Amino acid sequence: MKKTSVHTVVVYSGGMDSTVLLHDFIAGGTKTAALSFDYGSRHNHRELPMAKAVCRSLNVSHHVVPLTFIPELFKSALLLSGAPVPEGPYDVLTMKQTVVPFRNAILMGITVGYAETIGAAEVVLASHGGDHAIYPDCRPEFNRAFAQAARLGTDNKVSVRFPYEELDKRDIGDLGRRLGVDFARTWTCYKGGEHHCGVCSACRERKYALRCEEGMDPTFYLNSGGSK
Amino acid sequence: MKKTSVHTVVVYSGGMDSTVLLHDFIAGGTKTAALSFDYGSRHNHRELPMAKAVCRSLNVSHHVVPLTFIPELFKSALLLSGAPVPEGPYDVLTMKQTVVPFRNAILMGITVGYAETIGAAEVVLASHGGDHAIYPDCRPEFNRAFAQAARLGTDNKVSVRFPYEELDKRDIGDLGRRLGVDFARTWTCYKGGEHHCGVCSACRERKYALRCEEGMDPTFYLNSGGSK
Repeated sequence: MKKTSVHTVVVYSGGMDSTVLLHDFIAGGTKTAALSFDYGSRHNHRELPMAKAVCRSLNVSHHVVPLTFIPELFKSALLLSGAPVPEGPYDVLTMKQTVVPFRNAILMGITVGYAETIGAAEVVLASHGGDHAIYPDCRPEFNRAFAQAARLGTDNKVSVRFPYEELDKRDIGDLGRRLGVDFARTWTCYKGGEHHCGVCSACRERKYALRCEEGMDPTFYLNSGGSK
Repeated sequence: MKKTSVHTVVVYSGGMDSTVLLHDFIAGGTKTAALSFDYGSRHNHRELPMAKAVCRSLNVSHHVVPLTFIPELFKSALLLSGAPVPEGPYDVLTMKQTVVPFRNAILMGITVGYAETIGAAEVVLASHGGDHAIYPDCRPEFNRAFAQAARLGTDNKVSVRFPYEELDKRDIGDLGRRLGVDFARTWTCYKGGEHHCGVCSACRERKYALRCEEGMDPTFYLNSGGSK
């Protein structure tokens, strides 16, 4: 692994938030690479090919990291090995079932180690305000502590930043539209079927974010009913 | 993955420090489980079978987590995919080549997620004072920040502790002897040959720790010369 001129490594799922983040850095002229993770979720097989295609079209260096131990050792409705994906509104009790414990710390830890290896200065992740109540490893106080650990735990003092930490998911959708993101090439549905289901809590959140009711959402949903 | 009565999960390499730590918790009556990691190092194939055997004899639940991406994406003389293991004294410049970037954060991140999954209260890791100069992710200030991230990033507020943080490796050896640890069933040599080489910097450190010159070290070394 040679030192490269990459400045920023994006933790890139292929979902709408991290896709906007990737476009945001590319648009700003930053030399950017991306890491994605296959951790046995129901929707990895939908989002990862999209991530790959987007990176190819943007000419961004991209690796998919297999985390085969997660479905074996961890428990979550998000995983193929877990209970069914909850339907209904995006509220705390429903969504708690979809937590993969300490997932963001694991993904960021690997990305920081990779950044240190290739000489990149920073790692960015697209967690946002809408996730704070549900996922403890998306909250600003966690983000601060993890960033501090990364700075102290690497010789290059790798920086970890969360540029959308205070945004709402709809803010991210609006920003992506301004950046020309093709949201049809992003995946959100937790069920991971052929099309977005339109009823799981993640699809409802996506409809809200992409202003589905205003006719601005290019996604094909099996059930095109109300958002959030 | 059912909730269990496990209280503490040890990050367990099969090296002498984490083997002492495991015995220490078992001796104290703590319900303990262990996670080991196969990250493509030259010595994983020596230390992991020892870790497995020790856990079996102690009746400790044990999993080995494969981290296949590390030799592909990371660079270190510790890895089968890296440059040769340096010989000579255990000093900062020599040992820097053996850093696997942010390794402890990655191992602990996974262990914290596993602890959260099974309902364990804490994760412990045997990093010690002798590693501070070389490995940034062994230093007390990093340890504090990572522990804070784990507490904030989990619903159960998983605690991460470093009981040997202020000890010297020889203190750990002496403690292990008092606990009855069979050091012949621990592995240290970075080269990962059939026997401990006795000349790599890790072997020199082991000889010092186990008081080889005083005739107290049960290890067979290919080269039994001076320690440290």
